[in-house]
Amino acid sequence: MIFFSERINGMYRDVRAAIPERNKQVIVDLLKPQLDGGADIIDINVGPSKGDPVENFVWLASVVREVTDKPLSLDSAKPDVLVQAVPRIGGKLVINSSTADPSCMGKLISLAAQHKTGIIGLTMDKEGVPGNVEKRIECGAAFIMTALEAGIPASDLYIDPIILPVNVAAKQVQNVLEAIRQLKVVNDPPPHFIIGLSNVSQKCLKNHLINRTCLVMAAAAGLDAVILDAADKDLVEAVLTAEVLLEKQLYSDDYIKAWRMQKGLSQG
Amino acid sequence: MIFFSERINGMYRDVRAAIPERNKQVIVDLLKPQLDGGADIIDINVGPSKGDPVENFVWLASVVREVTDKPLSLDSAKPDVLVQAVPRIGGKLVINSSTADPSCMGKLISLAAQHKTGIIGLTMDKEGVPGNVEKRIECGAAFIMTALEAGIPASDLYIDPIILPVNVAAKQVQNVLEAIRQLKVVNDPPPHFIIGLSNVSQKCLKNHLINRTCLVMAAAAGLDAVILDAADKDLVEAVLTAEVLLEKQLYSDDYIKAWRMQKGLSQG
Repeated sequence: MIFFSERINGMYRDVRAAIPERNKQVIVDLLKPQLDGGADIIDINVGPSKGDPVENFVWLASVVREVTDKPLSLDSAKPDVLVQAVPRIGGKLVINSSTADPSCMGKLISLAAQHKTGIIGLTMDKEGVPGNVEKRIECGAAFIMTALEAGIPASDLYIDPIILPVNVAAKQVQNVLEAIRQLKVVNDPPPHFIIGLSNVSQKCLKNHLINRTCLVMAAAAGLDAVILDAADKDLVEAVLTAEVLLEKQLYSDDYIKAWRMQKGLSQG
Repeated sequence: MIFFSERINGMYRDVRAAIPERNKQVIVDLLKPQLDGGADIIDINVGPSKGDPVENFVWLASVVREVTDKPLSLDSAKPDVLVQAVPRIGGKLVINSSTADPSCMGKLISLAAQHKTGIIGLTMDKEGVPGNVEKRIECGAAFIMTALEAGIPASDLYIDPIILPVNVAAKQVQNVLEAIRQLKVVNDPPPHFIIGLSNVSQKCLKNHLINRTCLVMAAAAGLDAVILDAADKDLVEAVLTAEVLLEKQLYSDDYIKAWRMQKGLSQG
């Protein structure tokens, strides 16, 4: 399971305030527990912070890169911001994200192909987030086909079937799981499948429990990447256990410690 | 999810000792946390306790029935013990279990049909527990067909695809999940699907974590009954959360409390 850490995001008040102030320490302090929790890729999102979003992205990326050489995932719903930020930031990147709408997809897939970055494709188009499995598959398939034709290898593609909050869209969880299963079967080699996990429990009282339960179910459906709070220990232990049960990780009596050793993480 | 409580089982030392001593209090004390945890059916197994197994079953059943009127699941690998115990115990029962071997299945399905009990069918025959999905499906399908032909309704049938310890048979977890998915799709109305959960973590250090992770994955695959320790609060919360995410339970901010209220359990 590839962990994209979710925490360096301007949707959080502390990050939103730190960006215009250029307050490095806030970012560094938030980043460390994510890295120690096993983050593989650092998702960064400038959110609604003050100032120019491209300049904010460039600054935020530079701060993270002072701490770690892990790939960055540039998270924005504005294609033009991504088009400007990617060449200025450079290095190992994932573009997060494109929809399957032809004009958005055309622009961002070209960008990914040109700069050899990864790219996350949302299974939605101009009509918004699908309320069923079929439309998710249609959008996912269109995105995969377009990206492969542009020369992006499946290993650089991440399909995000868009998990929605269970308190307002309970049926969509099953649709997301089913879309992953079906898209995984028909694509060989398959792309990665990713969700923005915390969205499932937005404004839910039992958000940690809901997150880890959802992630275990999604792992069983074929999810192999996730945007999550890597500092949530119970969450990480749950998904590692799912991977042991799915034979993606070898069993040993302390498979969590073994995984941390493999990744070179502290054994605290 | 139908909870069969696993705790009144002679494989546990305390129960094994209590049976020949006819020590009711041990059984009553073990039963109460199971009932308070939400047990729907009480699985009882005399295990290797001293004395005549049929007499032991009759005594154990009478003790449980002094405490609760919930159905009992008579758990024995010996068909002849079940054939003798079922008519003597009577009332609401589930026979646990038959294999799909014709002679075993013939005897126990007749018994279930005659006494209008539920019955658990293991997806194995004389050759033992299958190492693959196909044989599990073959055994399961044979059992379902034979039981339906004998007039047992699907709602009284429980198929158990036999979960094995992850530390020695890691691949079998996926095979169990896949067997449930496939057998559920081809049978309409489907029977219940059940596993003896604790088996997956036998002699594992992180047994509670493995149990709840396995149960969440199995629920997503279509499991709707489980033999478990109903007193394991984290386990119960995990499976309820899975059911909310699968739309089997309605979401509310405190869906665990709501579930306990519905079942008439204490709100402690």
